[in-house]
Amino acid sequence: MRRFLPIVTGILVVASVVLARASAETPTAPNGIQLIRGFEDWKVIAPSYRPDKDHIRVILGNETAVEAMRKETRPFPDGTVLAKVAWWTRKNARFPVAVEPDKFVQVEFMIKDARKYPATGGWGFARFLGPELKPYGQAPGFVQECFGCHLPVKDNDFVFTSVPPIPR
Amino acid sequence: MRRFLPIVTGILVVASVVLARASAETPTAPNGIQLIRGFEDWKVIAPSYRPDKDHIRVILGNETAVEAMRKETRPFPDGTVLAKVAWWTRKNARFPVAVEPDKFVQVEFMIKDARKYPATGGWGFARFLGPELKPYGQAPGFVQECFGCHLPVKDNDFVFTSVPPIPR
Repeated sequence: MRRFLPIVTGILVVASVVLARASAETPTAPNGIQLIRGFEDWKVIAPSYRPDKDHIRVILGNETAVEAMRKETRPFPDGTVLAKVAWWTRKNARFPVAVEPDKFVQVEFMIKDARKYPATGGWGFARFLGPELKPYGQAPGFVQECFGCHLPVKDNDFVFTSVPPIPR
Repeated sequence: MRRFLPIVTGILVVASVVLARASAETPTAPNGIQLIRGFEDWKVIAPSYRPDKDHIRVILGNETAVEAMRKETRPFPDGTVLAKVAWWTRKNARFPVAVEPDKFVQVEFMIKDARKYPATGGWGFARFLGPELKPYGQAPGFVQECFGCHLPVKDNDFVFTSVPPIPR
């Protein structure tokens, strides 16, 4: 047995490192929602600006989200995912009348799954902060804060954003 | 011959209508650059805000543009196309601290083709205004106005926009 001990220890150490890395690689909100990588490749729904917070933002959507937005489908179908990316603002150094993104603030997700998230309008919420993408919230109940803010737009399936006009 | 006259006339009338419609359907700038349809499906490079003009904008890019932006390739390769879409702003009716897009203002294109556009840094410029996508400019020389504004960023291949940080 003794001669296997270093091997077993080695396997356990490797397994721990692999698990720790996997966990570190995919930040997970307290409600179990993981960061969805690759959102920067999704189509844009709309930009937005928050002078009160000094944020400039862009709301992106996966294919289900974009199709639902363009067809004005409400409620949004299961599988809809919206990503809102926020940066601090700065004036463009060579063209100061233009306000543009500076450092990354956060990315927030809304994931529609009517059966999985019945208590929050069918939406799962998550927010990841700063360059480390640190999950927001201490406990799963953090979503009440998100949902509370979205209650005024219940008649739009709890979504503030709409798709702005683009002539064709 | 006489009995063919109505047929020939008919063909000519149909051809004229088809040509006129094709032309009407694709707005064309005075320098010959046509509106590129489908830009709303391109990936986003960055949002921007212009308080001086009351515009909120999003800069989109075709695949060549996005790859060059992410890899910081300069000069941009031929085939790069950037589209800047602008809307008037409004406050979100249910969340007035958020500034969001209202009506469509314009879409502007920068098309990189070093041999085709040597006089303007290798870029072809075009702008299409309002819901009718009316081409901007009276004569091909309108591009001097575009190019003049972009001269201060000659060291960035005449492009103001950069891709903002997104942690991975």
